[in-house]
Amino acid sequence: MSNSGNEAILLIHCKDRPGIIAAVTRYVLEHGGNIIDLDQHTDSPRNRFYMRVSWEMENFDLDEQRIGEHFKGLIADRFDMNWKLYFSNKPKRIALFVSKQLHCLYDILGRWQTQEWDVEIPLILSNHKEAKQAANQFGIEFYHFPITKENKVEQEKRQMELLDQHNIGLVVLARYMQILTGEFIHEYQNRIINIHHSFLPAFPGAKPYHSAFERGVKIVGATSHYVTEDLDEGPIIEQDIVHVTHRDSVEDLVRKGRDLETLVLSRAVWKHIQRKTLVTDNRTIIFN
Amino acid sequence: MSNSGNEAILLIHCKDRPGIIAAVTRYVLEHGGNIIDLDQHTDSPRNRFYMRVSWEMENFDLDEQRIGEHFKGLIADRFDMNWKLYFSNKPKRIALFVSKQLHCLYDILGRWQTQEWDVEIPLILSNHKEAKQAANQFGIEFYHFPITKENKVEQEKRQMELLDQHNIGLVVLARYMQILTGEFIHEYQNRIINIHHSFLPAFPGAKPYHSAFERGVKIVGATSHYVTEDLDEGPIIEQDIVHVTHRDSVEDLVRKGRDLETLVLSRAVWKHIQRKTLVTDNRTIIFN
Amino acid sequence: MSNSGNEAILLIHCKDRPGIIAAVTRYVLEHGGNIIDLDQHTDSPRNRFYMRVSWEMENFDLDEQRIGEHFKGLIADRFDMNWKLYFSNKPKRIALFVSKQLHCLYDILGRWQTQEWDVEIPLILSNHKEAKQAANQFGIEFYHFPITKENKVEQEKRQMELLDQHNIGLVVLARYMQILTGEFIHEYQNRIINIHHSFLPAFPGAKPYHSAFERGVKIVGATSHYVTEDLDEGPIIEQDIVHVTHRDSVEDLVRKGRDLETLVLSRAVWKHIQRKTLVTDNRTIIFN
Amino acid sequence: MSNSGNEAILLIHCKDRPGIIAAVTRYVLEHGGNIIDLDQHTDSPRNRFYMRVSWEMENFDLDEQRIGEHFKGLIADRFDMNWKLYFSNKPKRIALFVSKQLHCLYDILGRWQTQEWDVEIPLILSNHKEAKQAANQFGIEFYHFPITKENKVEQEKRQMELLDQHNIGLVVLARYMQILTGEFIHEYQNRIINIHHSFLPAFPGAKPYHSAFERGVKIVGATSHYVTEDLDEGPIIEQDIVHVTHRDSVEDLVRKGRDLETLVLSRAVWKHIQRKTLVTDNRTIIFN
Repeated sequence: MSNSGNEAILLIHCKDRPGIIAAVTRYVLEHGGNIIDLDQHTDSPRNRFYMRVSWEMENFDLDEQRIGEHFKGLIADRFDMNWKLYFSNKPKRIALFVSKQLHCLYDILGRWQTQEWDVEIPLILSNHKEAKQAANQFGIEFYHFPITKENKVEQEKRQMELLDQHNIGLVVLARYMQILTGEFIHEYQNRIINIHHSFLPAFPGAKPYHSAFERGVKIVGATSHYVTEDLDEGPIIEQDIVHVTHRDSVEDLVRKGRDLETLVLSRAVWKHIQRKTLVTDNRTIIFN
Repeated sequence: MSNSGNEAILLIHCKDRPGIIAAVTRYVLEHGGNIIDLDQHTDSPRNRFYMRVSWEMENFDLDEQRIGEHFKGLIADRFDMNWKLYFSNKPKRIALFVSKQLHCLYDILGRWQTQEWDVEIPLILSNHKEAKQAANQFGIEFYHFPITKENKVEQEKRQMELLDQHNIGLVVLARYMQILTGEFIHEYQNRIINIHHSFLPAFPGAKPYHSAFERGVKIVGATSHYVTEDLDEGPIIEQDIVHVTHRDSVEDLVRKGRDLETLVLSRAVWKHIQRKTLVTDNRTIIFN
Repeated sequence: MSNSGNEAILLIHCKDRPGIIAAVTRYVLEHGGNIIDLDQHTDSPRNRFYMRVSWEMENFDLDEQRIGEHFKGLIADRFDMNWKLYFSNKPKRIALFVSKQLHCLYDILGRWQTQEWDVEIPLILSNHKEAKQAANQFGIEFYHFPITKENKVEQEKRQMELLDQHNIGLVVLARYMQILTGEFIHEYQNRIINIHHSFLPAFPGAKPYHSAFERGVKIVGATSHYVTEDLDEGPIIEQDIVHVTHRDSVEDLVRKGRDLETLVLSRAVWKHIQRKTLVTDNRTIIFN
Repeated sequence: MSNSGNEAILLIHCKDRPGIIAAVTRYVLEHGGNIIDLDQHTDSPRNRFYMRVSWEMENFDLDEQRIGEHFKGLIADRFDMNWKLYFSNKPKRIALFVSKQLHCLYDILGRWQTQEWDVEIPLILSNHKEAKQAANQFGIEFYHFPITKENKVEQEKRQMELLDQHNIGLVVLARYMQILTGEFIHEYQNRIINIHHSFLPAFPGAKPYHSAFERGVKIVGATSHYVTEDLDEGPIIEQDIVHVTHRDSVEDLVRKGRDLETLVLSRAVWKHIQRKTLVTDNRTIIFN
C-alpha cells in the first residue's frame, strides 16, 4: 500500500477453470514483478473467476506500453479473459456534476485540496449556478448547462465534448438532479458514479426521505452506484445507513442523510480510483 | 431503572395543546408518586403529543385498581387522551409461534431461562414439529397446528382459544412462516410482533436474501414490526443491518441474517415488554 | 424542530425531588409559552435531575432580558437549580483552531458555507501556516500564532484577547496539536471542543493509530470531548468507530480515521450549538 | 463456499519473496485440486506473507495423510514456511468453560443444536454449578471444578486430562471468570478463545462496565481474543461496539453488553472453526 513508485494493476474476470492464478502470478514473477497485492474471488454458482493483482513496476522487464499486448497473447487469450490494466502513476481526471445541494461537492473538493485524493479535478458542471462560488473558491472551472426537455440532448453533447477535451476518466454525480441519456451513459460506461439518497432498492425516486419518514423506518440509507440506463438500478458500489427515531422530522432525516451521502459517495469514488471495482452482471466486485 | 418495587407506567397520546405535561406530572406528584422516568415527544407537523411517564407505586395514595378511572376523570378526558396504564409487577405472558427455523426461538428461550427477561412463556405453537425438542428441553408446552388452506381458519380459532386460556398478552412470531388472518390480527392488535428477514420496505415477501443477492446489495437488514393486515407493512419497531460483500453467497447472507433477525426481534420484544412502544398512524413511538 | 421563530432553551440540573417538571412546565405555560421539546433525565443512583425544555417565544409574556431573573426568583432558587437560558436567534460565534491537518477544517467550513450550520466563523487560528489558504478561500480571517515553550503563555493571552474582541462563544480544536494552558481552558470552560483521534480511554496521547495498529485491534475510534486540564480526560460528547482488518496499514488507519474524526467532531459541535449538551461531574448529558 | 464434499485448507505464513503464490497454486493444480478460495496478504513493512487456500479433495491425487509431508518437501521447506493443513470433514470438538453468567453458553448451544455450527460439544466445565441445568437440557456432560488458590493447579491438571480424553481441539471461555495458568495456556496455544466484556485495550480487568459508566463513554465494546499469559493482551479476533447514552445505567450497559459479548464471541469461534484465523506476532490475520 505504499504510494511511492509506479504500480501495475491488473483486473481480470473470466470463466473459472484451474490454473488461472498460477498462470498470472508466474507471468508477473518471470518478468521481474514483485506482487504487492492479490485478491481473488470465485463465484462458484456462476462459475466465474475474478482477480485483482498489483505489482511494482520498478524491476519489471516490459515497458508499460508493451505489457497489455504481451499479456494478451500469452495469458489472457488462453483463458478467454476480460481484463484491464492500469498504472498508478497515470493521472485520474474527474469531472463533478452538481445541482443545488453542495455538501458532496465541498466534501470532494476538500479531499482534493488536502491531497487525500491523488486526482485532478479540472471542471465542475451544473444545471444551476449555486456551485459557481465553490468552483471559484477552489480555482476550478465552472460550466453552467441549464437543462430543459428541449435542450437536453444538445447540452449533453456539449458536456461530452467538454469531458473529452479535458480527458476526463470519471464522472461523479455529486447530487446531480438530472437523468442522463443513454448515449452519455453508454459513452462513460462504468465510469459514472451516482449517489442515491436512500437505501436502494427501498425508496427509489425523487423524495426518499419523505417516503422513509411516512413509512416510519428506523434506518435511512444511502447508495452509491454506477449509472446505467435503468434509473437507480445500476451496480451498487457502497451502501451505508444511519439510525433514526420517531423524534427525527423529515428535515432531520435530510440532515442525517447528508453526512451519509457524502461518506458513501466518497468511499465509492475512492474505491474506483484505487481500481478496486469491477462490474459484472450488474453487480460489483469490490476488491480489498 | 431499578427493578425492585412496583412501578406504574402511563402511555399517553393526544392532540398537542399547552399544559399536558404539567397536568400529568402534577397529578402524579399530588398523589405521592415519585417520577422515575418521563419521555415526551411532540410531532409538530401533525400536532400530536406523546408521553410515557413511570413512577414508584410505594407511596402512591391510590390503589392500582382505582388509578385508571380516577386519572380518566381528572386528566385524560380533559385532554381527550388515548392512554394506557401498566404495572411493572404484572406478569407478561408470551406465546411463541415458530416454523422450522429455530434460531430466534432458542435466543428467546435463553433470555427467558437466564432471567434476562422477566416474562412467562407458557407455550410454543408451530405448524411444524421441529420446535418440539426445544420446547421439551426448556419444559414448555408445545402445540402442533398443521396449517392448510382448508383448515387455517379453524386452526387459528383453536390457537386463539389456547392463547385466551393461557392469558397471553403478547404473540411473538419467531420466524413463523404463516400469514395470520385478519380476525387473529384484530384480536391481538399491536400485540403481535413479527421479524421480517430484510430491510423493509426493500425486499418484502418470502425470499429476501435471494433478492438481495441478485441485486448485489452491500447491506442486508432485518425488521421487526407489529403485524397488521397489510403483509410486511405494519408499524416498524426496530431495524438493523449488517454489511455484506460480493464474497457472500446466498447462504452467507442467510447466516449473517440469522444473527440479525435474532437481535432485532429480541430488541423489539424487550421494548414492548418494557412498555416503551406506542403505535400511531402505522408508525411507532419508541420511548427511551 | 422548525427553525423559524425565536425559541427559548432552558437547561437545568439539580438534586432530584418531586415536582420539578410540573413546576417548570407550569411556569412556561402560565406565561404563554408553547413547549416545543422537553427532555428530562433522572440519575437515580446519584439522585440528580437534568432537563432541557424549549418553547416558542412568540406569545411569551416576558422579555428575553427579564426571563432569567424572573425564573430564578420563582423556580430556580426554590429547587436550588443550576440552569442556563439560551435563545435560538442569538448568533453562535465559533473560532477554529487548527494545525497542519485540515480535513476537519474543510468539513466545518463546508457546513458553514452551505448554511447547514447557522453559525458565524469570524476567525481561524493556527500554530502553522497550512490553513491560510483555506481561510482565504472561504473569506475568513487567519491568525498565525507560532507556539514555543517560551512564548506559549503570551501567545495564548493574545489569542484570548482576539476571541474576546470577536465575541467568540465556542472554540473548536479541529485537530489543533497544542495543549492549552489551564488559564485558557478555565476561561472557556465547557466551551472548547476537541477531537481525539482514538476511542478514548484506549490509546490516549499523540500516536493512537500507531498504537492501535501495533495492538492489532479490529476497530479504531474517535472521541470528541470538552477540554479540561486533564489531557484527553474531558467529558465525552460523541464517539464512533470504524472496523479495520489486518489488511489495513497504519496509513489506512489514518485515512479511515480522518473520516471518523470529521464526523465525530461535527456531530459534537452540532449538539453543542443546538444547546443539547450539559456537563456534570465530567460526564455529558446529551439531550434528544 | 459449498458445504458438500471434503476440502483441504492450507494456512501459510513466511518471509515474503517472489513466487510463493505461483508455487502453491501450481502445486494444487498439478495434483488435481480445484481451488475454491484463495486469500493472501502481504505485510510489506514487516516483509511477511500470509495465505489461506482451500481446494476440493474430490479429484486430488494425494491422500489426506500424505499431503503434509509431500507439500513440506516440495514447497514449504523451499520457502521456509510456517504452515498448517486442515480438512473440512474432520470433526471440530469444543469444550465450553463457563462460570455463573450463561448468555454466551446458551447462544453457543443454540447454534450447535440448530446445526448452524458443524461442531461437537462433548463437555461443559465450570467453577460453579449454574450451568448444570443448561448442560442437562442439551444432553451434554457437565463437570464441576470448584477453583481455589490452593487447588487451582491440580484442578487444571484434571481439566486438561478431561480435554485430552475427549480429544478437544478448541476451548471456548464463554464468560469463564478464572485466569488460566501458563501451563494450560501453553498446552492449548491459539486454541483458547476468550470474550472480554470491553473494547480492549480500554477497560481491561474485572469491572469494565462500571469503568465505562464512570468515564461517561458513549460506546461500549466487546473483544474476543486468543488467550495468552498476558491477561487481556492476547491476539484480537473480533471486536464490536454498541452505542450508549447518559440514560444507560450500569445495569443497562451490562444488558447491552451481553448481546455484544454473545455476538462477538460467536463470530470469533466461527472464524476459528472455518480455519480463517492465523496468529502472528500477537496479531491475527482473519481471512475472508
